[in-house]
Amino acid sequence: MKAVILSAGVGSRFRSEKNKVLHTILGKPMIWYVLQAVKNSSAENIAIVVGHMAQEVKKAIESEAVSFYYQSNPKGGTADALIASADMWRSYDGYLLVINADTPLIKSQTLKNMERFIHMVKEYENVTLSAVVLTGFLPDPTGYGRVIKDSEGNVIKITEEKEASFEEKKVNEVNGGVYIFYAPHLIECIFHIKPSEKTGELYLTDVFKIMYQRGYKTRTFMAEDASEIMGVNTRWDLAIAENVVRLRILQYWAEKGNTLHQPESIWIDPDVVLEGDVEIYSDVTLSGKTKIGRGCVIGRGCVVINSTLGSGVVLEPYSIIKDSRIMDDARIGPFAHLRNECVIGEKSEIGNFVEVKKSAIGKDVKAKHLAYIGDAHIGDGTNIGAGVVFANFDGKKKYEAHVGSGAFIGSNSLLVAPLKIGDFSYIAGGSVVTKDVPDGDLAIARPQLRLLKGKGREKLK
Amino acid sequence: MKAVILSAGVGSRFRSEKNKVLHTILGKPMIWYVLQAVKNSSAENIAIVVGHMAQEVKKAIESEAVSFYYQSNPKGGTADALIASADMWRSYDGYLLVINADTPLIKSQTLKNMERFIHMVKEYENVTLSAVVLTGFLPDPTGYGRVIKDSEGNVIKITEEKEASFEEKKVNEVNGGVYIFYAPHLIECIFHIKPSEKTGELYLTDVFKIMYQRGYKTRTFMAEDASEIMGVNTRWDLAIAENVVRLRILQYWAEKGNTLHQPESIWIDPDVVLEGDVEIYSDVTLSGKTKIGRGCVIGRGCVVINSTLGSGVVLEPYSIIKDSRIMDDARIGPFAHLRNECVIGEKSEIGNFVEVKKSAIGKDVKAKHLAYIGDAHIGDGTNIGAGVVFANFDGKKKYEAHVGSGAFIGSNSLLVAPLKIGDFSYIAGGSVVTKDVPDGDLAIARPQLRLLKGKGREKLK
Amino acid sequence: MKAVILSAGVGSRFRSEKNKVLHTILGKPMIWYVLQAVKNSSAENIAIVVGHMAQEVKKAIESEAVSFYYQSNPKGGTADALIASADMWRSYDGYLLVINADTPLIKSQTLKNMERFIHMVKEYENVTLSAVVLTGFLPDPTGYGRVIKDSEGNVIKITEEKEASFEEKKVNEVNGGVYIFYAPHLIECIFHIKPSEKTGELYLTDVFKIMYQRGYKTRTFMAEDASEIMGVNTRWDLAIAENVVRLRILQYWAEKGNTLHQPESIWIDPDVVLEGDVEIYSDVTLSGKTKIGRGCVIGRGCVVINSTLGSGVVLEPYSIIKDSRIMDDARIGPFAHLRNECVIGEKSEIGNFVEVKKSAIGKDVKAKHLAYIGDAHIGDGTNIGAGVVFANFDGKKKYEAHVGSGAFIGSNSLLVAPLKIGDFSYIAGGSVVTKDVPDGDLAIARPQLRLLKGKGREKLK
Repeated sequence: MKAVILSAGVGSRFRSEKNKVLHTILGKPMIWYVLQAVKNSSAENIAIVVGHMAQEVKKAIESEAVSFYYQSNPKGGTADALIASADMWRSYDGYLLVINADTPLIKSQTLKNMERFIHMVKEYENVTLSAVVLTGFLPDPTGYGRVIKDSEGNVIKITEEKEASFEEKKVNEVNGGVYIFYAPHLIECIFHIKPSEKTGELYLTDVFKIMYQRGYKTRTFMAEDASEIMGVNTRWDLAIAENVVRLRILQYWAEKGNTLHQPESIWIDPDVVLEGDVEIYSDVTLSGKTKIGRGCVIGRGCVVINSTLGSGVVLEPYSIIKDSRIMDDARIGPFAHLRNECVIGEKSEIGNFVEVKKSAIGKDVKAKHLAYIGDAHIGDGTNIGAGVVFANFDGKKKYEAHVGSGAFIGSNSLLVAPLKIGDFSYIAGGSVVTKDVPDGDLAIARPQLRLLKGKGREKLK
Repeated sequence: MKAVILSAGVGSRFRSEKNKVLHTILGKPMIWYVLQAVKNSSAENIAIVVGHMAQEVKKAIESEAVSFYYQSNPKGGTADALIASADMWRSYDGYLLVINADTPLIKSQTLKNMERFIHMVKEYENVTLSAVVLTGFLPDPTGYGRVIKDSEGNVIKITEEKEASFEEKKVNEVNGGVYIFYAPHLIECIFHIKPSEKTGELYLTDVFKIMYQRGYKTRTFMAEDASEIMGVNTRWDLAIAENVVRLRILQYWAEKGNTLHQPESIWIDPDVVLEGDVEIYSDVTLSGKTKIGRGCVIGRGCVVINSTLGSGVVLEPYSIIKDSRIMDDARIGPFAHLRNECVIGEKSEIGNFVEVKKSAIGKDVKAKHLAYIGDAHIGDGTNIGAGVVFANFDGKKKYEAHVGSGAFIGSNSLLVAPLKIGDFSYIAGGSVVTKDVPDGDLAIARPQLRLLKGKGREKLK
Repeated sequence: MKAVILSAGVGSRFRSEKNKVLHTILGKPMIWYVLQAVKNSSAENIAIVVGHMAQEVKKAIESEAVSFYYQSNPKGGTADALIASADMWRSYDGYLLVINADTPLIKSQTLKNMERFIHMVKEYENVTLSAVVLTGFLPDPTGYGRVIKDSEGNVIKITEEKEASFEEKKVNEVNGGVYIFYAPHLIECIFHIKPSEKTGELYLTDVFKIMYQRGYKTRTFMAEDASEIMGVNTRWDLAIAENVVRLRILQYWAEKGNTLHQPESIWIDPDVVLEGDVEIYSDVTLSGKTKIGRGCVIGRGCVVINSTLGSGVVLEPYSIIKDSRIMDDARIGPFAHLRNECVIGEKSEIGNFVEVKKSAIGKDVKAKHLAYIGDAHIGDGTNIGAGVVFANFDGKKKYEAHVGSGAFIGSNSLLVAPLKIGDFSYIAGGSVVTKDVPDGDLAIARPQLRLLKGKGREKLK
């Protein structure tokens, strides 16, 4: 089987400068989901017909093994788009899957089942099908194309909402925008499609009328789950489709042995991996290439992007982790923010209102309150007090600081990089440290405290 | 058409000291939604009948062009409430819309359709209707008044749940609490209503029985969407109604070309405006008079209240913006908090754990970590380090600070207002600044750093 | 009535090292909900049959007044499990409730109704029932055991999905896993159950076949709400069950007169108490033994654990309160974090990016920005500036600080405990305080500020 994905439409109801198939679902362009489903079916060759904003669409999926065809007339219609790819299947004696790029909920299993259905009809009824169209049964079919069939099951025609008669509008079986054609019959019929009187477009759906007139056999294949055939035409549709994909991913991970609380509130991207026995609370986002180790607990509202968590890591609520790596049994948050390639060592604790940026932090380090740790290397077992700031910027350049193991950085200290603080050194609270501190030394910078008798009460009067 | 909104009920199931119609849906009192629907129908005169907590209800909507009538007996019932407004429509030869104030989901289009229905019945059937009642079809009608009709469609009576027979309880067409009466027939019939034997109240629904007995023609008009007729009787109903209104607003903005992720988690007040191509992530609240410029990105969990964002602004997760104005392409958060009439200039960046209060901040300013900026004016391109505090309060009064352009405020500095820091001045990290710093000067306040050999290791033993 | 809860299964589809009935729903093990329902029915004696991970299950509910029986063969099946408890009911001339521990959505009212149904059949039909099975009507019964009945209503047999014929699979009445047996008939029949050919297990459901063969009368009792009979077999089921329990609790509190916004996003544990007129915004978690006083407002995303709030407390968004007590009319947050037995006095204000740990704070205290208050006692009316840190740890031990009433702690000060700051004393901003400050004194530690002419501009070039 070969496959063509039609992605040439304008998608004006999206009211967007971007091509609608590039709008994302869980961080991936809508067309990516269609492409995955096609790749996981039995299709061997995949082409995409682009048109509107062709370059952007090609760029978004250039890493995939697909060929591209170009529809020059953006108002040509779906048949015109398919014709644009005819070089690929013109001489092909086999079946061609044709699918719209705006049906991201389609499952590869359904595509496989459609193809198997063709083989079964051949085997058991000895009928060679010229086309199968995927359909859905909708209690309210308004807006969808209705599929009109004869008593044997052949498709007489597919009628758009705006061209349907009163009787046709009552039909609940609607067009899902996914077809498998026998290529020789398709090439024979497709050029006979006439432009719509209303829009001037060539509708691919009209090929069924032509096939029927020629006595070719066609069938519908009804999707088990009608949500699969949903076409995404507005950003409201997009939001609904994103929710469907999201819940599929969540159910997958729950059944794999992870506990999700309020799953409808959780966001997990397709590339994320949970290693098992992970417990995820409400309103969590796990996105990009993220891996969560066995037994981690992710508290309410955490956001983890392109990061790796070892096993047994606890994220307290409202922690944000970007592009970082957290080792086993570390404890982060609440309200912690790690970014730009941080590494947090085993059993370390990063607490509330602490930002760590591009820093390598050893094991058993504690930085539990209100601190900014930027461009730093911190050895095992060191304690960073509340209000400590690593001053890594002098207005022109960034500098690094190195702190040894077993050190103690007193609260409200300022460490002015570049700087080296030795092992087991001790910085007295409130000190501004501007030069290196050797191993084991105590550094203190502190003006004398003066008490002015009664002056406090006076100032407050 | 004239209109009367009945808002005199006690609403005891709300268990509230506040009148139930003043409980809010997305920040507006429930009655506001009914009033908007009535105003957007063809009603020319609108009256509200108040009773229980009359003053509070009047105050909540005093800015609207409506007249008020007072029902003196809070247990008088709906007919008694309507009679209280009789001066308005007693001599009116036209139609009177009567609607309960606790049906906030009603749409103005439905009210228009009800009125048009009366005209169509007149035109096509040559029947003058004396009343139309809005109904809904509910699979489970428990708790609602059932509408009993004759074969021609006239309403024989409307029966409350508690007075319905076994057969009547099976009727699925229920009373929606919205009526249009021909005023001359209403005034003729309404005084014949007798008090309920069970409650002593005069039920307006009983007017249909009287009209029927006198041979007046009445009809039901079924709402397309049964949720419209939902009466809000408990705070659980209120929560459900709020969700319905919320989703309507969200769908509106999505279809206008904005991207909403997990829309069911997003809160957008009725007065908020999105200028297009806005991307909103989960759990965002936009409330009050807020305007979001084209292309803004609002990250997870942000709260924006009575604020204006220019175009291209990015709010990182968990940023809170109150009563402020953010210029184009500024970048805020995560975990930033702006309040009390802040202005943030173009392309400025306010980062994590930074609070800005009543301050005017120029363009290209950076304040990226743990800082409190209060009552300050900051010039273009200035950099505010981590841990910087603007000390604007001396225990008795608040003072302002002015910082020039291109300045550098080193980390953990304390700027004690009133204070003026000049352009291109430089405050060394950790300094307490208590006097003005002229343009281009470097200010430093720093005790000497002493290193005590081996004393660090000793203290940590 | 006596009752046996069957909790011996392995629950392998949970893919967990923990017994599945110990997985929690709103912080309580799944089995706890079943036990509560049974306790609130009319059962007088309650036994639990444990097997897989018996010790852990016993430990989780050891405080409850139940007896335990042990099933030695974890693959013995449900009848084998029930037989393990036979000592309890072998000689009992009464009814025995048998319920699976993985049906946490069962309501005690339903159990009562089942028992009453037995008495009514006795009274009105003069039939002594040997068994009643709770059933549900499911539009899609896939996966559930189908209940096959004769025309009189006796259960002929209960057929598992995998053993059901094509005709039986069409039956929509399914087994709910809850039974009431007449003990003498149960003991007579249960030992005649034969092992399943497929699994070797003894299925309790097979007792119905045996009873039917002996002419005993049995009936089904259909649950009003089919969700009650949901068996929790995977963690996805668990998530759904948790949502059902959650919504029941939320509806309860709304109808008691509290306002919940976006209730589907709110998490309230079973032991939490709301005193009325509480307003809760989206994404709030109230867990453990928490009590929220009348008229409190809980802002978006707050987390309150094992804490007590007085009346009129306002939590601004994203505040986290653990194991603490907040007095009337205090105002907390946004982004505040209180933990380890804090007490916050009346009308005090704890603001953004402030952490308070194990501290007792008086009335009218203000600590509104970026501060760490640990192991402190603070008197009434004291003001804690931005960036203030209580240094309570010297690298080896923790110390306490005492601050009097009416004091002023200037911004960016460091209070090095142990320490005593007197009433109406004044700490100048940026001071490091290492010794006690008497009442009314002003303490200041501040190096001289030097201005270096033009050096600022130079450094920034």
